[in-house]
Amino acid sequence: MGAELLITRQQAPPAAASATQVLERFRQPIEAVLRRVLAERSGPMYDMLGYHLGFDGAGPAQGKAFRPTLCLLVCEALGGPWQKALPAAASIELIHNFSLIHDDIQDGDRLRRGRPTLWTQWGVPQAINAGDAMFCLATLTLAELRPQFEDELVVEVMSVLQEATREMIEGQYLDVRYEAVPQVGLTEYLEMIRCKTGALLRASIEIGAQLAGAGPPFRLRCRRFGEAIGRLFQIRDDMLGVWGESEATGKPVGSDIKRKKKSLPIVMALSLAGQAEREALLSMYGQEMISDADVDRIQQTFERLDVKARVQALADEAHSQAMDLAAAIHFSDQGRAELVSLVNFLLERDH
Amino acid sequence: MGAELLITRQQAPPAAASATQVLERFRQPIEAVLRRVLAERSGPMYDMLGYHLGFDGAGPAQGKAFRPTLCLLVCEALGGPWQKALPAAASIELIHNFSLIHDDIQDGDRLRRGRPTLWTQWGVPQAINAGDAMFCLATLTLAELRPQFEDELVVEVMSVLQEATREMIEGQYLDVRYEAVPQVGLTEYLEMIRCKTGALLRASIEIGAQLAGAGPPFRLRCRRFGEAIGRLFQIRDDMLGVWGESEATGKPVGSDIKRKKKSLPIVMALSLAGQAEREALLSMYGQEMISDADVDRIQQTFERLDVKARVQALADEAHSQAMDLAAAIHFSDQGRAELVSLVNFLLERDH
Repeated sequence: MGAELLITRQQAPPAAASATQVLERFRQPIEAVLRRVLAERSGPMYDMLGYHLGFDGAGPAQGKAFRPTLCLLVCEALGGPWQKALPAAASIELIHNFSLIHDDIQDGDRLRRGRPTLWTQWGVPQAINAGDAMFCLATLTLAELRPQFEDELVVEVMSVLQEATREMIEGQYLDVRYEAVPQVGLTEYLEMIRCKTGALLRASIEIGAQLAGAGPPFRLRCRRFGEAIGRLFQIRDDMLGVWGESEATGKPVGSDIKRKKKSLPIVMALSLAGQAEREALLSMYGQEMISDADVDRIQQTFERLDVKARVQALADEAHSQAMDLAAAIHFSDQGRAELVSLVNFLLERDH
Repeated sequence: MGAELLITRQQAPPAAASATQVLERFRQPIEAVLRRVLAERSGPMYDMLGYHLGFDGAGPAQGKAFRPTLCLLVCEALGGPWQKALPAAASIELIHNFSLIHDDIQDGDRLRRGRPTLWTQWGVPQAINAGDAMFCLATLTLAELRPQFEDELVVEVMSVLQEATREMIEGQYLDVRYEAVPQVGLTEYLEMIRCKTGALLRASIEIGAQLAGAGPPFRLRCRRFGEAIGRLFQIRDDMLGVWGESEATGKPVGSDIKRKKKSLPIVMALSLAGQAEREALLSMYGQEMISDADVDRIQQTFERLDVKARVQALADEAHSQAMDLAAAIHFSDQGRAELVSLVNFLLERDH
């Protein structure tokens, strides 16, 4: 579905930009900071980082820069100086990408955004170094908020970002751990994504608010807004991993089943299944490899159990929480409309 | 050689503490901060971190805490409040340990300080997470310098530490890269250890000076002092890897040869060897495994080329630079004597 359709779903003012336009508006300035940060360092190690970010000239820059866009948009929507906040936005994007580089090693993923992952190109040891370096550059880039912002604020933003990173790593720890157990409960799953995906999205919004000078009560509401967005984001991601069209996602249909990923559809299915169906699912997920025939069988079970609708209901719930919070926070009208576009995009995106 | 003997080598006042006593004096307060930092976080991920640091109750705490001791000692020797600097010291130790966790994965090392490494116990994916979490905790711990120190200083210390970490990772990148090439030149080798080992040692000293309120010219001399110490530290480490007694190091004699590590002895040997000897060495290092007989043969070549004396000369040179700088910097008499003990310890340590 085109992003242009989405904003008509909510009561956004007619002048509001589409999600694509919003993402496009911030993409170039964010990318400019990232390119400069890498260009300031020389040496072959940084080639790996440039490759990962798609700055190697072999294709377009990678990723939607969704998190840093949220940060800048929230800052602007609260009357803050979003241009001055760019180092924070770039830092957030670097943290996200550090986690992707290590994640690809941990999951054994050979492709990301259609290109070979770092570890397949340079080996696991150098990919570990590349992730570490990306993390380090994130912290160094955040310090570039000086002298535009007071040192006190810079240290506070640093703490918010590092605490979120710590939670993100905890989520990643849980994710790896859950790969090794036969069944994950819905509550455990939601806690895992709250950390793994939610923490950095939440921090992106909170930091946007911090840099706009928002006080603690404001920031609390922003955190809750961010949590809802994070949940929505990951649930939709999990849906695309099972039901996404491969042309849009760049992955085969049912790819998360094939990879035996403990994502929301299977977690939900196991929580709904009767004993016989549960045992059948567990036995298929317990195999070394899941055959195409078993992928079909699993998808039929999902259909019988109405898994897609149940998962969609959780996405809708997160979406509506996010919308309520967007309405309750004192964003500018224009800023709120743009945030609403992004939130709607998350619910309906096909990639 | 006992550490007590060492201080008589230099003109330290008779009251000066031995290196062991200096390390012991700071060990307990540093460990207390590290234990608290871990205790404040709950969840099984932190068990891995506690295990790595030896806080799991199965043995004594791990490591000499050499870097944080240097930081605190320099701070004190320049009249600074070393107790208040403890969060920085703990942060430095966490950075060092984050690098060890990832290093063990990269080198495939199964043992560290006589215990199984994290990746052998929990697998590579979780060991990557443990290292990432340790890095994150390092930055969070550094922020605990507030409110004892001004925010401006905290941000500056943060930048020094993160820049040093970035250099350390670059050094690690070079180290991994050099494993794959047949021969590494002496200059390349020295640049690699300047980054991999030198950067964090240098930062430890610089941060000690920063927290004592030292100005830029002072800090420059401290950086040079730290660079010399770093070079000395790594050269001695490389010597122990080839000529160390296994009871003291906990590793088999010649372990770095067995592991085909491109450490200083082989780098030096290749730079000194004539064509026939070089080819013989390269052919032995080019094998899948180095047999015990070949380890003997390589050690005989080292003897013929007088490699140990040449390497020792480089260590002596770094030692004497460090001593000159220790004399030139305005440390307190007591502090200088203790620093001299540590520098002498580095030259003569057997583990």
